[in-house]
Amino acid sequence: MAALRPSPLAPAQFPKLSELAGVKLATAATGLKYKGRDDLFLILADDGTSFAGVFTKSATAAAPVHVSRAGLKSGQARAVLTNAGNANAFTGRAGAAEISTYRSAFAAALGLTEDQILIASTGVIGEPLNGRAIADFAAQISQQTGTASWHDAALAIRTTDTFAKGASRSLMLEGQRVTINGIAKGSGMIAPDMATMLAYIATDAAIAPACLQQMLEKAVSSSFNSITVDSDTSTSDSVYLLATNKADHQPITDINSKQGKAIYTSLQEVMIDLAQQIVKDGEGASKFITVRVLAAETDTDARTIAFAIANSPLVKTAIAGADANWGRIVMAVGKSGAKADRDQLEISIGGIVITQNGQRKDDYDEAPVAAHMAGDDIDILVNMGLGSGEAVVWTCDLTHGYIAINADYRS
Amino acid sequence: MAALRPSPLAPAQFPKLSELAGVKLATAATGLKYKGRDDLFLILADDGTSFAGVFTKSATAAAPVHVSRAGLKSGQARAVLTNAGNANAFTGRAGAAEISTYRSAFAAALGLTEDQILIASTGVIGEPLNGRAIADFAAQISQQTGTASWHDAALAIRTTDTFAKGASRSLMLEGQRVTINGIAKGSGMIAPDMATMLAYIATDAAIAPACLQQMLEKAVSSSFNSITVDSDTSTSDSVYLLATNKADHQPITDINSKQGKAIYTSLQEVMIDLAQQIVKDGEGASKFITVRVLAAETDTDARTIAFAIANSPLVKTAIAGADANWGRIVMAVGKSGAKADRDQLEISIGGIVITQNGQRKDDYDEAPVAAHMAGDDIDILVNMGLGSGEAVVWTCDLTHGYIAINADYRS
Repeated sequence: MAALRPSPLAPAQFPKLSELAGVKLATAATGLKYKGRDDLFLILADDGTSFAGVFTKSATAAAPVHVSRAGLKSGQARAVLTNAGNANAFTGRAGAAEISTYRSAFAAALGLTEDQILIASTGVIGEPLNGRAIADFAAQISQQTGTASWHDAALAIRTTDTFAKGASRSLMLEGQRVTINGIAKGSGMIAPDMATMLAYIATDAAIAPACLQQMLEKAVSSSFNSITVDSDTSTSDSVYLLATNKADHQPITDINSKQGKAIYTSLQEVMIDLAQQIVKDGEGASKFITVRVLAAETDTDARTIAFAIANSPLVKTAIAGADANWGRIVMAVGKSGAKADRDQLEISIGGIVITQNGQRKDDYDEAPVAAHMAGDDIDILVNMGLGSGEAVVWTCDLTHGYIAINADYRS
Repeated sequence: MAALRPSPLAPAQFPKLSELAGVKLATAATGLKYKGRDDLFLILADDGTSFAGVFTKSATAAAPVHVSRAGLKSGQARAVLTNAGNANAFTGRAGAAEISTYRSAFAAALGLTEDQILIASTGVIGEPLNGRAIADFAAQISQQTGTASWHDAALAIRTTDTFAKGASRSLMLEGQRVTINGIAKGSGMIAPDMATMLAYIATDAAIAPACLQQMLEKAVSSSFNSITVDSDTSTSDSVYLLATNKADHQPITDINSKQGKAIYTSLQEVMIDLAQQIVKDGEGASKFITVRVLAAETDTDARTIAFAIANSPLVKTAIAGADANWGRIVMAVGKSGAKADRDQLEISIGGIVITQNGQRKDDYDEAPVAAHMAGDDIDILVNMGLGSGEAVVWTCDLTHGYIAINADYRS
C-alpha cells in the first residue's frame, strides 16, 4: 500500500520524553511486513518494577492477550515485547505455540523466564505469525536494550498510524521529581473496551502493584475507554503501566492518599493526552470532536448518549461536511435508549445554544455555528436537563479517507 | 443538491402493483422542498378497513408519530397523509400545531374527523414545517383520490431514495384471490427499531384489527427490523398495514389459523422484499450483504452478533473494497458481547468455510472467496457452534458514496 498521508490533526512534533530510570527500550526491523522501518519493540524494566495491565474485553481476544494476562498475574513481569504488522489473532493453538517459540528465545537472551515477558501484537487478524522469524532478533534486541528512545519505540509500534504518539508529565513527590512517560498506537478499530490500541506508560515513581493496577483501570475509563473512531473493538488491545520504584519517596499504596491523588492526576493527563492523539490519528480524521453530555439521569446514561452521538455515522459525516446538522444529534440522542425528554434537551455546538423547549431557538443564527463547524476542533454539548449524569467522549469525523484506508488496507 | 445516481443494486423496474379494492391513492407536488416532483401522498381507505401500525422507538420521536399513535388507538383511522422533505421532528409544540392546521383542512375536505387521518413525515429534522402550505392542497388531493398509482405513491414519498420501492403478492383464501400491495421509502438512517423508513402495505383480505396488528408486529421483526444501513435510527419511521376487508372470505381473527398463517407468510414476503429494497438503496450501497448467524447460544445472541457484523464499519468497508478480510468478522463477533468460543467459530463467505478450530483452515484458498467478494451479493455465514440461536440480517457496504451523500445532504 502507499504510505499514508499524515493526519491533518497531527501535533507539530513528538513531545520531549526524557529517559526514565529503571526502563530500557530497544527496537528492531524484522522486515516481516513493513520494509525500511522498525516493527519490534522491547521495554525492559529493572527488577523491582511494579507492573499493571488492562486488556481488550473481546470474546475473540488474540493469543498475546491470553499470554500476557497470565504473565501479569504471576507478579514477576519484567518486559513487554511487541511486534507490529501481524496481530497473531484467531490463529488457534498455533498462535500460542509461535509465541512460545520466540518468547523462549528472548527469555534466554535476556536471562528471564518466559512468564516474565509479556507479549503484544498488532496488525492483520488471522494470518499465521512466524515465531522463528521474531526469535531471530532475540540476540540483537537484548544487546541493544537502552539504545532506543521513546520516539523510536512509538514509531516501531505503528500500523496504520500516521504519526508517533507520546506524552509526558512530571511532578514533585516528597521533594523528588518523578516522571511519567507514555507512548501509544492506534487509529482504526477504536472504541471502548480497548479497541485496537496499544499503550505503554512508565514512571520512576514508587507505587505498589495493586495500587498501580487500580490507578490504571480507573484512568483507562476516562481516557482510552472514552474514545471512539468507528465503534469497532479490536482483539488485541493492551495498556501497560510500569512503575520502576526508582524515585526516593515513600511507596504509594493508596490511590486516595495525597501522593496517590497527585500522581493519579498526572497519569490521567498522560493517558487522556495519548487517547486524544489516537483519535486525532483516527483513520481519515479531519476534525477532532468532543462530545460532552450533562444532566443525564445517570452517568451511565450520559455515557450511552455520548457514544450514540460519537458513533453515529450520520453525525460524523455531517461534521466531515462542516454541516451544522444538529438534527442528527437529536436523532442520536433518541436512538441511544437512554432517558430523554424532548422539551428539556438543550443542544449546543461550539458553545452556541441551538435548541430550547423541544425546538430550535427562535433567534437561532446558523452563521456562528457554521463558522465553528468549519474549524478542526468541534465541541458538542448536550444538556439533558434531567439529573446529574455526566460524560465526555472524544471522536473524529467520518470521511472519504476512512473508506479509502479500510477498503484497501488489510488491517 | 445534484440528483442522486440510481443505486447499482436497484431492480430493473418497479413491480406491477394492481389496484386494490377499498383503497384510493392521491399524490401532489407542494414545491416546499423538491421541485418538479410529487411530495405529498394520501392513502384513503373505505369505511370498515382494519388499520395497524408500528412506529419508531426513538425517545425523540417526531410529532407525526405521536399524532398517529393516538389516531390509530382511536380505532377509526381511514387515511394516512405523508409529506416528504421535512420530518416535522424536534419542532416542539409548534410541530403539533402545524399538523393540526393541515390535518383539519384535510379532514374537512375528505369528510373525516382529524383523528381519522394519520400523519407521516420524512426529511430534514428540526426545520419548522409550514402546515398552511400543506393545507392548501387539501381540496386538490381530496378531488383526486383514486387517480394515483402505487408507483406514483412510491415516487412521492422518496427523500434520498434513488428508486421507488414496491412489492406485491397474491394468494387464494377460501377460493378468493386476495392481494397484498406494499410500498416503502428509506435509504439512510436505517437500523432496527424503525429507522428512517416509511412503509404502507394494504390488502383486500378480511383481517380483524387486533390480528392485523399482531401480524404487522411479528413481520416487522423479521423484515424492517432486520436491516441496517448505518446503525442510525430515525425519529419518524412508521409502517402502516391496512386490510380493507373487501375479499369475500371468513374474516381472519387468529394469526395461527390456516388462513392466518397463509396470509402472514405472504405479508412477510412483501415486507422482506421491501426491506431488502431499502438496503439495496442504502446510501452509497454497491453490494447487498446477507449476514446469517447459526448455532448461537440464543436467538438474541445470534441477532446481536449479526448486527455487530452488519454494523461494523470495518466489515462494511472491507466488503466495499471486495477484500476477503474475514479477520474483521472475527473482530465483530468478539466485540458483540454475545457468548463466543474461538475454537467453535466457523466463518463462511459465499458458502466457503474459512475457519475451523479457532484458526484459518490449513487448505484455505482465498481465490474463490475473492471471486465471491467481487460480486454484488455477499453472503456471510457465522456458525457459533454453541446452541440453536439463529438470525438473519441484511445490510449494504460502506462506500465513498455514503460519505458523499451524508457530508453534503442535510437529511
